[in-house]
Amino acid sequence: MNIDGLGEFGLIDRIRKGVGAVPDGVRGIGDDCAVLTQKDGLSTLVSTDMLMEGVHFLMQDADPFSLGWKSAAVNISDIAAMGGRPTGTFLAFALPEGIDGRWMDSFMEGFRAASLPSGVPLLGGDTTSSLDRLCICVPVLGDCESGREVLRSGARPGDLVCVTGTLGDSAGGLQLILGGLSRKGDGEYLIQRHYRPVSRVAEGMRIAAAGATAMMDISDGIGSDLRHILEESGVGAAVRTADLPLSAQLRACSQLYGWNALDLAIDGGEDYELLFTIPPGAEKSLKVPHSVIGVVCEPEEGLLWDGVPDERHKGFRHF
Amino acid sequence: MNIDGLGEFGLIDRIRKGVGAVPDGVRGIGDDCAVLTQKDGLSTLVSTDMLMEGVHFLMQDADPFSLGWKSAAVNISDIAAMGGRPTGTFLAFALPEGIDGRWMDSFMEGFRAASLPSGVPLLGGDTTSSLDRLCICVPVLGDCESGREVLRSGARPGDLVCVTGTLGDSAGGLQLILGGLSRKGDGEYLIQRHYRPVSRVAEGMRIAAAGATAMMDISDGIGSDLRHILEESGVGAAVRTADLPLSAQLRACSQLYGWNALDLAIDGGEDYELLFTIPPGAEKSLKVPHSVIGVVCEPEEGLLWDGVPDERHKGFRHF
Repeated sequence: MNIDGLGEFGLIDRIRKGVGAVPDGVRGIGDDCAVLTQKDGLSTLVSTDMLMEGVHFLMQDADPFSLGWKSAAVNISDIAAMGGRPTGTFLAFALPEGIDGRWMDSFMEGFRAASLPSGVPLLGGDTTSSLDRLCICVPVLGDCESGREVLRSGARPGDLVCVTGTLGDSAGGLQLILGGLSRKGDGEYLIQRHYRPVSRVAEGMRIAAAGATAMMDISDGIGSDLRHILEESGVGAAVRTADLPLSAQLRACSQLYGWNALDLAIDGGEDYELLFTIPPGAEKSLKVPHSVIGVVCEPEEGLLWDGVPDERHKGFRHF
Repeated sequence: MNIDGLGEFGLIDRIRKGVGAVPDGVRGIGDDCAVLTQKDGLSTLVSTDMLMEGVHFLMQDADPFSLGWKSAAVNISDIAAMGGRPTGTFLAFALPEGIDGRWMDSFMEGFRAASLPSGVPLLGGDTTSSLDRLCICVPVLGDCESGREVLRSGARPGDLVCVTGTLGDSAGGLQLILGGLSRKGDGEYLIQRHYRPVSRVAEGMRIAAAGATAMMDISDGIGSDLRHILEESGVGAAVRTADLPLSAQLRACSQLYGWNALDLAIDGGEDYELLFTIPPGAEKSLKVPHSVIGVVCEPEEGLLWDGVPDERHKGFRHF
């Protein structure tokens, strides 16, 4: 989708221009979260994502528990991506006819289940009606020691490029859903990964403490997300696609259905794993399961995939 | 609108039950804002409202500047309603086809114009696409001295019930829009009040400092909103309808079109004026223009309008 010839990021630039000055001690648009420095040595982190029926989920397919889960998880993930501790979620939704009390209870169960591991409470929100489609917006607050938040802008040549978990599973799950393919066995795993992503809060805090120089969560696919880190940091990177972590389930389904697993891993998006850069010495002592997929280079080198300059990996764009 | 026989507040209760425990020092669902006590003597205030096309505004009528204005103003108003200082807004929207760059620039101009008087910066957000309708969600952050936030729960018998500004103008404006009536003269004023409400930030801070015991902003109409204060505070109130502040413009249009101005003032909603209770001694020295419309009573007395128990004033309900 394209708004008047602007891409999503062109649109954000246009909004950014309209914003005006941001006060000292505040970091606004351009990272996973805004950062507001408090006087007590803590920073408040704030993020907000919107999930729209027909764009982010299909009402006829998404069960309310999974939808509640995902609404909480993808937003908490933005706090994890800064190395922060989530402190509160807010839930605003516009509800169409047909939503009943049972649906709502199941949605809230899922929302709560995804919030439980990080202990983050739901603190407020807004409920309103919608003429047709369900729309969900979940602002989330977090905190971390001031100056210890991991931005996208700190990657330095020589750092390793790493990811937690496996990539492409969520995109594989979406392929199964859209193609009406089998949801048994490996398929069940991929669909679970699509509908119930896990926000890597504990991992993010440990990665930050270990000395990560840049971090973000993978929402659009590393093909797109890695470029954000490189642009914000003013560096290049060389990635080895053979080192991209793929699950056995994604490999099996890819073989069965003739998918290109690497394309799903690079451009698929919605994995909500953490993508981070970290100096090699710090990586050695990192106690979080992760894969090293590349190395940060000088800016002139750009982004290389197996030595080939990045051209085609554009990730999922909303516009 | 009705979700499975639950009203809006029944729905909120259902959500609240699903939430679980809220940590010490945090006040969650049930007021204009959530309150998070920080260690530095300040509390962080958070609120979030959603505006949905077809429910809160009509795309064919609302110009983008006004829509941007209102999106910012109604959310900043929630911080004003606690006596707080807004520190940052966030803007999430789902954009349908047909939104162009010019529309967006004008929306942002309005958003910024409504934010300027209180100096609150836009710090982040999310842009996504929508299959058909525009949906806007504006989380807003504020702060105030810990313990000085004015909740809905502090009204005590003997306090005066007061409001800023005039009531019913926004509802009058909506009548003009929906009825296709004249937008000239008095009509222009009422429509302006509907599309470009002013968030009473400076007033809210002064009212809080003067010793208000309870406060909220008028979004659903005082017929509904006053009951929230009474329920949360466990008190009753006696209101004199002759003391409800009505603008000359609303009186004139009411006479012309045969509206009941009092009904609009009581049940109309979206005025975003401040409704507050304050001890008589403190009210005397209050330097904010306001009207005294009643007095807080013992809980047994309930809510009385000109001495008649409240039955019919139900305010605008979303469900």
